[in-house]
Amino acid sequence: MNPVACNWRIVLVRPRNPLNIGAAARAMANFGFNELVVAKPYEPTWQETRSAVGAEDVVRSARAVPTLAEAVNDAALVIGTTSGSRRHLKRDLVLLGDLPAWIASRIEKGGSRRRSLLKAALLFGSEKTGLSNEDMSHCHALVRIPTSAGCPSMNLGQAVAVCCYECTRQGMVSGRAPGARIHRSDPATAQSLAHLFDRAVHVLDAVGYLQPKSREAMLMKLRELLLGLGLTNYDARIMGGILAQIEWKVGGLKGEG
Amino acid sequence: MNPVACNWRIVLVRPRNPLNIGAAARAMANFGFNELVVAKPYEPTWQETRSAVGAEDVVRSARAVPTLAEAVNDAALVIGTTSGSRRHLKRDLVLLGDLPAWIASRIEKGGSRRRSLLKAALLFGSEKTGLSNEDMSHCHALVRIPTSAGCPSMNLGQAVAVCCYECTRQGMVSGRAPGARIHRSDPATAQSLAHLFDRAVHVLDAVGYLQPKSREAMLMKLRELLLGLGLTNYDARIMGGILAQIEWKVGGLKGEG
Repeated sequence: MNPVACNWRIVLVRPRNPLNIGAAARAMANFGFNELVVAKPYEPTWQETRSAVGAEDVVRSARAVPTLAEAVNDAALVIGTTSGSRRHLKRDLVLLGDLPAWIASRIEKGGSRRRSLLKAALLFGSEKTGLSNEDMSHCHALVRIPTSAGCPSMNLGQAVAVCCYECTRQGMVSGRAPGARIHRSDPATAQSLAHLFDRAVHVLDAVGYLQPKSREAMLMKLRELLLGLGLTNYDARIMGGILAQIEWKVGGLKGEG
Repeated sequence: MNPVACNWRIVLVRPRNPLNIGAAARAMANFGFNELVVAKPYEPTWQETRSAVGAEDVVRSARAVPTLAEAVNDAALVIGTTSGSRRHLKRDLVLLGDLPAWIASRIEKGGSRRRSLLKAALLFGSEKTGLSNEDMSHCHALVRIPTSAGCPSMNLGQAVAVCCYECTRQGMVSGRAPGARIHRSDPATAQSLAHLFDRAVHVLDAVGYLQPKSREAMLMKLRELLLGLGLTNYDARIMGGILAQIEWKVGGLKGEG
């Protein structure tokens, strides 16, 4: 297996045009991707989605979920797509063709050789606006499709096609590995990082660190920081334990106060 | 300049859906392509074509021509696209990612270092059927987009996007070179090969080689053979001269008969 091969999920965030969901599914089927999730869907769009030629299986098994967090919870790598024309949060901005190198470095950052197939989510924003800053704060990296400055914004279905082509071309696509175990030296899943984050927020609230006015912006910043750390599952467990201890202590102090 | 950079023209052959022409134009604009020709258009499709976002310039300068020959006449390289799922004529079948190597070998075949920017045409067939065998007989090579066997056929706009992305990624795209001269050691243009071919057919008819029943199939075969030779402009001139001489002689014999 190619060391950077992942088990991919394509996530469309708030797509507006049902034709684009079908088109994305067809491009996925063309290049051997099979898992499609639509996050925060506009209900009419989701209801009107029809399969494009050859993509019946992809569309039939597609899911809609109300939040982006649910769409990526079991993913160890969450990667957003962008034309690179807007200002971004502090995120690695990786050229599409350089994605394998980035994945390799991310795995290395975990400090050990990887032993299990990683779950990776590739996110595409809505047709008009792309991914929001809040969406991007859920990503470990942003991938830039190298479009020209004069016409940077791609059609959604075409962007999915180009990304799926490139992932396949570079051997980054692996099928399902049923029952694959998650190793402690694997990059932490989005879900375990989300738990860690919630716990951290709880502690920060308890100690009065978060101000109502700047709360949202600060949380986004902190989520970026956390995702940037490249924690393994083991790291996340350790840090979770530390936070639990602090929580307990802070709760105790409060109770005493 | 990258030695395999070409001045590209995208040719859509008989597209049925005007939205796909707009989508193709947008993908072209995304990746720095600007010349779009629609060959053998269904008139309603062509009339209903509207620009997609950001592709106004591409659509405004797009042309419709009644035959494929007219769409490629000044091109030194004519390359068809295919999912590779159908039987093909005897044509080099090149994986999309290997196109630069093929172009380099084609230039080398001309026997000398290339000195001018080549005009290249990239052909896409209609949504339902792709390129016909007759269309393919106008091509020097067929490029295969590496789609999966289970769903080989791509949406037209998405196929254009993937090819344009790949050409740009590999440095195969160069802007217009106004006033660029055609060198005698450059690969022969489609037009000069078409003239040569017409001349050859004329001779073959005169000598009674072509049978009415097999005529069309034989002509397609001969066109393939001619395009496979990798003639330079100089070669084409020499061969044209030879054929003219034969024509004259045959005509003379006929007159005497």
